[in-house]
Formats: sequence, structure tokens, C-alpha cells
Amino acid sequence: MSVDRLSAAIAAMKNPTVVGLDPDWNHLPECLKNGAETLQAKAEAVLAFNRRIIDAICDVVPAVKPQSAFYESYGWHGVKVLEETMQYASSKGMYVICDAKRGDIGSTAAAYAEAYLSGNAFTADALTVNPYLGSDGILPFVKQCVQNDKMIFVLVKTSNPSSGELQDLKCEGESLYRKMAALVSEWGKESLGTCGYNAVGAVVGATYPTQLAELRQTNPHTFFLVPGYGAQGGGAADVKPAFDIRGGGAIVNSSRAILTAWKKEGCPADFDGAARREALRMREALGEVL
Amino acid sequence: MSVDRLSAAIAAMKNPTVVGLDPDWNHLPECLKNGAETLQAKAEAVLAFNRRIIDAICDVVPAVKPQSAFYESYGWHGVKVLEETMQYASSKGMYVICDAKRGDIGSTAAAYAEAYLSGNAFTADALTVNPYLGSDGILPFVKQCVQNDKMIFVLVKTSNPSSGELQDLKCEGESLYRKMAALVSEWGKESLGTCGYNAVGAVVGATYPTQLAELRQTNPHTFFLVPGYGAQGGGAADVKPAFDIRGGGAIVNSSRAILTAWKKEGCPADFDGAARREALRMREALGEVL
Repeated sequence: MSVDRLSAAIAAMKNPTVVGLDPDWNHLPECLKNGAETLQAKAEAVLAFNRRIIDAICDVVPAVKPQSAFYESYGWHGVKVLEETMQYASSKGMYVICDAKRGDIGSTAAAYAEAYLSGNAFTADALTVNPYLGSDGILPFVKQCVQNDKMIFVLVKTSNPSSGELQDLKCEGESLYRKMAALVSEWGKESLGTCGYNAVGAVVGATYPTQLAELRQTNPHTFFLVPGYGAQGGGAADVKPAFDIRGGGAIVNSSRAILTAWKKEGCPADFDGAARREALRMREALGEVL
Repeated sequence: MSVDRLSAAIAAMKNPTVVGLDPDWNHLPECLKNGAETLQAKAEAVLAFNRRIIDAICDVVPAVKPQSAFYESYGWHGVKVLEETMQYASSKGMYVICDAKRGDIGSTAAAYAEAYLSGNAFTADALTVNPYLGSDGILPFVKQCVQNDKMIFVLVKTSNPSSGELQDLKCEGESLYRKMAALVSEWGKESLGTCGYNAVGAVVGATYPTQLAELRQTNPHTFFLVPGYGAQGGGAADVKPAFDIRGGGAIVNSSRAILTAWKKEGCPADFDGAARREALRMREALGEVL
């Protein structure tokens, strides 16, 4: 199963890291930008950037997570590059989590699920989804996961400062994110893998370690995707509670810190080497606490 | 302002209707499909379908609402057609609401907002957004609305059967959708148009007329986008509470009933004529209750 492949890849590389491929134009070194002005030229530079990042990390990092927003900001040319990036990462053996946070009513959710999880259009192993519409907006995704051996990650407790505005509301005796976590558990119960986790994962931010620990207890079979490490402020100690006692059950995302490591190192031409070195530092930092 | 243009177009055509351009492959007549098998060929057929629908309705319907999911299901070719459809509808003077229900953390929300509301990539007048992440996921969209004279519609009480699972939860003395409606009001208060409504609208389903009436009272300056009419079960009487006493402040979406009117009429070659006739019937039905 998809979640077993992810768990095995993490174990093999001893690295529960996913690199966020968020190609903000400011993240690219000038030598790749080449004076690009049109959306098409920019999108092509992004693809070149992504390919070199993928080449540089694919033997030490098990997964990538392209963030759809940064591709859509280049229009359809960017979406074409999103497809090509996901295909390229897959061809290099990486697990691909498309971070698009889709969610809609049943019939429309089915169209999104087909787009991202059927293999007909976009080639992802997993998709992030937004649960604001409730079960009938999520179950079409779960159906595609089961049919095509894919995963989803449902937003539960997000990493941003105002995530609590809704997610921490006390609803009928319990916080909203706890209620959501219970639904996630329910949605996933028919898809348990041999690794002990199921196909319906949850997004829980590194910036909320207390909630990570709480949810690890309430959701023993839910795999966590943990954003917020690095640039957003989460550190290795903060993400430790996301993991089970064997060091499994979670993957931690870092985007900016890795993609722009070349700025810190001052080596624009070697941006991919800098990304690899930063990814190795992150692996080491996580290894120390797990 | 954007909301004033929308209000004026509705008033000029005496028609508070938006036609949902949801090009599910099953909605197209065989004569347009032409044996298309590749995503590219299918996407091209969709564009031809949309253009004829737009041509047929643009003098009697003020707005269209392409649903991004159905374009993404054709991969990047579909997203290209989404762009082209929105450009074509704009060129015919129609108000374009891109129904993509985007939402993410601050820096990523800014990328989505730039993609859809800056005019750089996709040409929409308005975008639907998902508020699960709270204010810092919405304010980047509000900023682009103010800068570029656009609108957003925030999901508040959606039309689907399980929308209540989260949205109706009683949270600290009040239902979640009411709390969300209060936030929507707050987010919009700096962008009031001369029509009395502001740039931050709300999505409230026709299938929940009681909540529509309640929210019309609590949110006197929030423009409502009302899905769920027609195929989903909402009728003209159900949507009446969405409107103010002058018959303003809301626009009602119908997708399937209009796009597939040719099936009911049995006239595949005249699918666009059938769509126009159905749109006129909807205008009449709404006119009778308003």
C-alpha cells in the first residue's frame, strides 16, 4: 500500500523528510532565471530548478511535496510544470505529495479526486485535502485512494499563526481539530497498511508540538504530514511528538530552508548542492531527537 | 468596484443568476466529443462547448462560474482551457467567478491570490476561498481584492448534505458557520461598494434556506453566492431569503440543469439553445419570487 511504500522509503533512507517544492520566483538563482519575463519562460526555469533539486536529493530524501499555488501562479504553463515535476520525481523513485488542499461538494470532490489520484491527469502518490465541507467532500478522495493505492492528508491543525481561529474552537466539549482528527480516523479505518498506518493521513503543524503529541495519542493509525519546520519556526524537538515510539508515522516538510540554502551559503550556481547539504543537516537534526 | 459591477450587471439583466461552467465529460453532446480520447482533445472539446454556451447566454445571464475541478481533471490542457474560458467570458462582458475554493497558510495564500486576482495568470473577477486556516489564510486574498478591484467568496455554509458536520457545530455558544460569517463581515469591512455590499462575499447553499435567512440578517453587507439551485434540490422559494428587500445582494448558481438542458429537451445539436432556454426559465422562476 501507498502508506507502506512511504514508510519503507523513510526507513530505508533513515530520513522522515519531505522537501517542499515551492518555486516562488524569488527562490531561484539569477543564473537560472536568465531574464525570463513571460509566464512560459518562468515556468521553464522552474522546471529546470526542480529537476536539479530532485537530482541532488533523491538518494537521501524519500519524498517531495510540490505546492500547487506556486505553479498556478505561472498560469497553465506552471501547471504543466507541476505535472512534469511530479512525473520527474516519480521517475527518480520519490514519493510525491501534491499539496493542493482541494475540497468541494461530493460530485466536484470526485472530479478533483480523479484529477489527482486516478493517474489520468496528475501523477501524485498523495494529495492534501481540506475538510471544511465534511464527509461527502472527503469520501470521493478516500474511494480513489482505495481503488488506486494512493493517500490523502487531511488538514487538521495547520502550522500558521491563526490556525486556531477555527481549529481551536471548543465545539460541544472538544476542540474542532480533535473532532476533525476523529473523523480522519473514521475515514481511514478501512485502509490499514502493514506499517500500522492507513491511507487517510493528517496535516499537523510543527509549530504546535502540544497538539502533535495529543493527536499522536488519539490517532495511532493516522500518518502525519508535518509542515512548519525550519523557516516557519518549528525545530527538531518540536516535531518529535509527531512520531511513534519506533520513529515512524510521520514525515516532516521543509521548503524554503532547503530551496534557498544557496542564499545562506552564498553559492547560487551550486543551489542544488546547497539544497542537498541542508537536507542532510535536517536529516541529522531529526536523527538526533528520534 | 467589482461588487458594484456585479450588482449593476444583475440589475441590468434583471437576472441574479450565474451559470456554473462545470464541463464534466458526460455533460457534452456526442457531436462535440468527436471521439476525443486524449486529455488535450477532450479539453479542446470543452472549450468549444463553453464558447457556445457563453455565446448563447451572455446577453441574458450576467456571470459565469467555472468550477476548477472539472478543468483540472483534464490535466494542464484543462487548466489552459480554464484560462481561455475565463478570458472568453470576460471578452463577452460577463463577470467571472473562478470556483477553485483555494486556501492555505499566509505565504502560499498570497501565491494563490496572485495567481487568480492579480491579472498576471488567470483572468477572474472573483474567486471562491476556503477559510479552514483562519485569517492569515484569507487576508492575502483580501489584499489583492482591494489592490486589483476583485472579489472573493468565502465558504460559510455550503450546499452539500454533510456540510453541517463541521459548519453546524455549536462552538462556544454559536454555530461555526455563524462564527465564520462574523469573520467574513470583519474581513470585508474596508471594501464597501456603493451598492451596499463589500468585496468579501460568502458562499451559502440554496439547500439551507433557514440559514440563508439568518445570515442575510447577520451580514447585511455580505454579498452571497448561492449554489445548490436546480440539480442539487434548491428552488426559487428556497433562495429568496438570500436577497435583500430590493432583490439585491445575492447571485444564484445553476450548473448541471443549464449545461445538460439539451438532454431533457432531446436536442444535442442545439445544446446551447437549450442552455439559453433553461437560463431564461430560471430567470423567470427567480423573477416570480423576488
